[in-house]
Amino acid sequence: MVLAQRLSRLGTETAFAVSRTAAEWAAGGHRIYPFHLGDIDLATPINIVEAMNKAIADGKTGYCPGAGIPILREVLAEDIGAKRGMTIDPGQVTVHPGGKPVITKFVQALMDPGDEVLYPNPGYPIYESQIEYFGGVARAYRYIPTATGFAIDLDQVRSMIGPKTKAIIYNDLQNPIGAESTEEERQALAELAQRHNLWVLSDEAYFEMRYSGTSHSIAALPGMAERTVILYTFSKKFAMTGWRLGCAVAPMEVSAAFAKLNTNNESCTTHFVQYAGTEAIRGDQSGPKAILAELEARRDTTAELLNSMPGVTVAKPNATFYLFPDVTDAMAAKGFTELPTFATEALHATGVSFCTRLHFGRPQPGENRSYLRLAYSGLPVDNIREGLGLLKTWLEG
Amino acid sequence: MVLAQRLSRLGTETAFAVSRTAAEWAAGGHRIYPFHLGDIDLATPINIVEAMNKAIADGKTGYCPGAGIPILREVLAEDIGAKRGMTIDPGQVTVHPGGKPVITKFVQALMDPGDEVLYPNPGYPIYESQIEYFGGVARAYRYIPTATGFAIDLDQVRSMIGPKTKAIIYNDLQNPIGAESTEEERQALAELAQRHNLWVLSDEAYFEMRYSGTSHSIAALPGMAERTVILYTFSKKFAMTGWRLGCAVAPMEVSAAFAKLNTNNESCTTHFVQYAGTEAIRGDQSGPKAILAELEARRDTTAELLNSMPGVTVAKPNATFYLFPDVTDAMAAKGFTELPTFATEALHATGVSFCTRLHFGRPQPGENRSYLRLAYSGLPVDNIREGLGLLKTWLEG
Repeated sequence: MVLAQRLSRLGTETAFAVSRTAAEWAAGGHRIYPFHLGDIDLATPINIVEAMNKAIADGKTGYCPGAGIPILREVLAEDIGAKRGMTIDPGQVTVHPGGKPVITKFVQALMDPGDEVLYPNPGYPIYESQIEYFGGVARAYRYIPTATGFAIDLDQVRSMIGPKTKAIIYNDLQNPIGAESTEEERQALAELAQRHNLWVLSDEAYFEMRYSGTSHSIAALPGMAERTVILYTFSKKFAMTGWRLGCAVAPMEVSAAFAKLNTNNESCTTHFVQYAGTEAIRGDQSGPKAILAELEARRDTTAELLNSMPGVTVAKPNATFYLFPDVTDAMAAKGFTELPTFATEALHATGVSFCTRLHFGRPQPGENRSYLRLAYSGLPVDNIREGLGLLKTWLEG
Repeated sequence: MVLAQRLSRLGTETAFAVSRTAAEWAAGGHRIYPFHLGDIDLATPINIVEAMNKAIADGKTGYCPGAGIPILREVLAEDIGAKRGMTIDPGQVTVHPGGKPVITKFVQALMDPGDEVLYPNPGYPIYESQIEYFGGVARAYRYIPTATGFAIDLDQVRSMIGPKTKAIIYNDLQNPIGAESTEEERQALAELAQRHNLWVLSDEAYFEMRYSGTSHSIAALPGMAERTVILYTFSKKFAMTGWRLGCAVAPMEVSAAFAKLNTNNESCTTHFVQYAGTEAIRGDQSGPKAILAELEARRDTTAELLNSMPGVTVAKPNATFYLFPDVTDAMAAKGFTELPTFATEALHATGVSFCTRLHFGRPQPGENRSYLRLAYSGLPVDNIREGLGLLKTWLEG
C-alpha cells in the first residue's frame, strides 16, 4: 500500500525530539530543567474557565459556525483593532483551533504551486513545511546580529524577490530569536510588499507577550490591511496553549475562504471554548497581568544567568518568552564543534534541556555562530536559577 | 490581489444555507421546526463535563502530543477494537478535533493528484469536496431503493473501478439515507478493495448511534485492517458535536502520517477535552443510553408521522438520526416539480425546515424520485409531533 507523494514534502517540528530525549533522560531518574518547550506551566485564569462552564451549562455544546461565534468575532475585531490602531470588521475575523492553523490556511488560500514564499530562518519550522507541502518554493531570509539583538537582512530580502514571489511571512517579536523590528524595518518590508504586490502573513503570536514598550503591526501601515493576514492566538497571553483557540484577521475575501476551509476541515472550533475566549478579552485582566509579571521575572533571571556564563552572550528582548544565546565561544572552550553533541552532553551533565538553532531551519550559507534557544515559560524562577547554575558550573569546569 | 486556484475546487456543506434561510424566517417572528440540522439538542452527560474540569484543575491546559494523549489512544484502541472484534494497537489511533478532519487527512495522506476515489452519493458533501480540492477525481456511486431502505449499486461500483482508482469511501449507517449494508454487501466491497488494492475510508460516525441490532465494521473483515481507516467520533453517542473530538484508526504508517499532519495543522486537539473523552468511554454509560432512548422515540414519532402523510413513504433505519423520505408523489399532488421550491413553500406554510437530496451531492443520471432529509436529533417529540402535524395538514390541503 502506497502513501501519497505529497507527504514526502511535509516537514515537522523537530523540537518534539528534544522533548522525547528529555523525557527518556528523566525516566532514568534524572532531574530535568525543561527550557526546550514553548509552553507555559501557569494556570489559565479562573474567570476564563468559569466562562467556559457557564457556556456548557447554557447548552453551547453543539456545532457553531465554521467562522466562529458572532460575539467572539466582534470582540476580537474590536480588541485586535484597538491595540493596532486599525478598524477591523468582524467579518474579517475567522476563529481557528489555535494560531497555528492560520499558517496552513494562509498558504492554501494564497499560494499556488510553484509560487515562491519568503520566510524567516531561524524561524518557526511549520512555515517552511507548509509552503513546500502545498507545492510552493520556500525561500529563507536571514537575520543579522546587532548590538541589541537581531535585524532582518533587508538587502537579502530585496535580492530574493522576483516575478514568482507571492508572499512573505513576517514574524515580528520572533520565535526563536526574540527579534523586534524597528519602525524603519517594518516600513521597509511594507514598502517591498506593496511594490511587488505580495501577500503578508504577520505572525503576531507574541504581540501582547511583551514586558516594556509597545507592539506594532505591519497590517496597520497604509496600504497593508488589504494584503495582510494577522495570526492571533490566545495561547500565550492567557496561558491557553492546550485550549486551541486563535484567529485570523484577513481581507474579507480571504476571510470567506478561511471559513470555507474550516467547514471542510474541522467544522468549527470547540464551541464553548469560544465563550472562554470572549471572557478572556472582555473580562478581568488581572490574570494575564500576573502571567506577564511572572514571565518577566523569569526572563530577567534567565538572561542574567546566561550572560554570567563564560563564552555565552544573549540579548534581552522586550517580548516573547525565548532567549537565543550565542554559545560559540563556550562550545569552543569545552571542545565542542557540533550543537547536538553539546546539547546532549549538557543534558547529561546538568539536566538542562534546550533547543538549538538547528531546530529552527537549515543553517544558511555563511552562518558561523552557534546559538541555543531557551524558553523560560515552563519553569519557575527557582528552578531556572538551579538549572542554569548547574549549566554555568559545567561550562566553567 | 489573487487567491490560490485550488480554492476553485473547494466545495462546502450547502446545508448551512438551509440554516440561514430558517434563521431568517424565524427572525420574522415565525415558529420553526428545525429538521435540517445534523446536531443534537441534548446535554452532554455531566460526568464527561466533570472529567474535563478535573483535567483543567490538574493543569492539563498546555500542549499535548499531536497524535493525542496516551491514555485516550489506549482507551479508544481497546473500545473500538472490542466493539468490532479487532485488535487495535494504540499507535494506530490518532486523536483529531472531530471525526470530520479524518476525511481531509485520509485524502491528503493516501490520494495523489489524478487518482480516482469512489464516494457515496447521496452522501456527506465533504468527501467530494476534499477529493477534488486535493486534485483527485471524485467518482460518485449510487444507492438503489429496496423494500427496507437502500442498497449500494455494487454493479455500478464494479464498473467504476479502473487502473487509476486509489480508494473508496464507505459510509455504512449512512448520512443522509440511513442505509445499512447487509453482510453480503460489506463483504463484496471488501473483496473489491482487496482485488483492486484500494484504500478504504470507513466512516463509522453512526456505528454506536443505533437502536437495535449490531453494527459491523468492514475493517474487521480478513485482509481489511491494513487498508482501512476508521473514522470515529464522540459527537453523536455522547452529544458532543461542539466539543470537536474524534479519532482515526489506521495502519501504523498511515497513523504516523496523520500525526505529522496534526503537528502541522492544529498542533494537537484541545488537551483537557481528551480527558473528557476518556471518561466518556470508560465512565458511567447511563448518559449515552438515555440519549439513545430519546433519539429512538424521536425516530419512531418522525417515521410514523411521515408515513401517515399522503404521497410520502420512508424506511425506518435502525441507526443514524436521519430519515430520507420519498416525497415524489406528495410533490406531484401539490403541483411541485422542484425540491427547493417545495422546501421553501413548506417552510413558509408550516415552519418545518429540512434538507433535500440536493444538499448531498449532484443528482446522478437516471434519478427520478425526490427525497427530503430530516434529522430528528434537534427537537423533542412534542415539537416533532406539532411540526409534522402541520406539514401533514398542508400536504393534505
